[in-house]
Amino acid sequence: MSSNSTINVYIISDSVGGTASQLGQAAMTQFPDADIKVSAYPFIRGSDTLLSILEKAEMDNAIVLHTLVDKALNETAKTFCQSHELIFFDPLSPIISELEKRSEMAPIQKPGALHLLDETYFNRIKAIEFAVKFDDGRDPKGFLEADIVLLGISRTSKTPLSMFLANQNYKVANLPLIPEAHIPEQIWEVDPKKIVGLTSDREALNSIRRERMITYGMNPDTEYSKLDRIDKELVFAKDLYDKLGCLVINVSKKSIEETAAIIINTLQIEHKKFEQN
Amino acid sequence: MSSNSTINVYIISDSVGGTASQLGQAAMTQFPDADIKVSAYPFIRGSDTLLSILEKAEMDNAIVLHTLVDKALNETAKTFCQSHELIFFDPLSPIISELEKRSEMAPIQKPGALHLLDETYFNRIKAIEFAVKFDDGRDPKGFLEADIVLLGISRTSKTPLSMFLANQNYKVANLPLIPEAHIPEQIWEVDPKKIVGLTSDREALNSIRRERMITYGMNPDTEYSKLDRIDKELVFAKDLYDKLGCLVINVSKKSIEETAAIIINTLQIEHKKFEQN
Repeated sequence: MSSNSTINVYIISDSVGGTASQLGQAAMTQFPDADIKVSAYPFIRGSDTLLSILEKAEMDNAIVLHTLVDKALNETAKTFCQSHELIFFDPLSPIISELEKRSEMAPIQKPGALHLLDETYFNRIKAIEFAVKFDDGRDPKGFLEADIVLLGISRTSKTPLSMFLANQNYKVANLPLIPEAHIPEQIWEVDPKKIVGLTSDREALNSIRRERMITYGMNPDTEYSKLDRIDKELVFAKDLYDKLGCLVINVSKKSIEETAAIIINTLQIEHKKFEQN
Repeated sequence: MSSNSTINVYIISDSVGGTASQLGQAAMTQFPDADIKVSAYPFIRGSDTLLSILEKAEMDNAIVLHTLVDKALNETAKTFCQSHELIFFDPLSPIISELEKRSEMAPIQKPGALHLLDETYFNRIKAIEFAVKFDDGRDPKGFLEADIVLLGISRTSKTPLSMFLANQNYKVANLPLIPEAHIPEQIWEVDPKKIVGLTSDREALNSIRRERMITYGMNPDTEYSKLDRIDKELVFAKDLYDKLGCLVINVSKKSIEETAAIIINTLQIEHKKFEQN
């Protein structure tokens, strides 16, 4: 039980609950000052368990957000919430109904269908392993096998961006750019349409590099964080991007999700997340 | 334009579109045999652009799924869809309205509020970098700093699971278990409540390891993939898990999302994804 001013949100799913969680969070972030408590109930497969959660939700006067794809469970939730005047959201059902009408097919009612261990899933696992293996220019062979090659000087979010894109099924290799280091010859063999040059603002890099040095327990004002050093690196990167003719993205005010969306849309590579089997 | 039998789904967002994409995909996976074409339109910030997309949607007789948080854009979409009899779903608005009522606050109407470059975001970036740095037992110091330590023999999804958990803000280190190798002493200093022992079925491991050898262009029937070798490793892992008294999960029929949800729920570690600032 929470205090009166706390808004309780119950996330209920017969699978992982990722869809309901993300939707709930997208709504909640529009109220950064509200006191919202989220309780997650994944893998709910029996009506007894479901009912006991809904009873708790009623005691908490909670907002119920569920993605139950099993019709019987879905009906149980609906009946309980309506008869107990509990506010509930079931964002999947209307979309499923519309697809049912248009496709003239019945939904498989399979919880966790998003998480089938199918070819797409295993390709994603391979993409994640690929990104870890070919992170930080560890093996230049990766550049030739990658769907996307990320280039960037230190602190331009190459690693997290690689992992995020990998989770969307893209094979990503990244290369840190250091003016003193040799550019692997494989880079010149890659189709420039697959290459993304990451850049940032000098002040942003200065501040983030100083912070990094502090984290490492080192003097923040090392060569690494100095503005003239950063300028030298930025010029080196820009020259390389010009020579390659690749897409260039300034990441200084962008999240990895935003940068990833720009990459996918601009490179016009296949939307692998939506691959149908 | 697609053929008559194709169902077109337009995903429209004033930000990345991740929420709408995931919701759309969760619905679509319930119709594995339907011919569904998804078109994504992220970062829509102007009504002219929005209207031209909606006109295209009308020509495609598409289902429109949007998460426009800007009230003016949201209204534009609603008016167009209603007057042109276009089926549309706006899953965020009713949840935002309910939160508005309960919190007595106005939504910030900020597109991409999920992707604020705030403390939670930078902690997530650090968690991803941490997971890459401490993947594969690279540095035993990681075990003491981690929120979650994953143990497992080869091919029990340690790396992709680490990356998935990292993307949910958990600092994860993993250690491959090899009967012949020494277990780093740091493992015994970690709170067993933070440790997860991954295991799998011997046949599943046999098949996945044979496949891995084939990928590497090697003989699939090496020592690595032999059943008696796998049995030896499984016994070694089980003994260690018993000694540690840690949570054990058999991953053979589970996706990384499912395993991650089990870990987060069982270890009862804070739901970092919902951290409010």
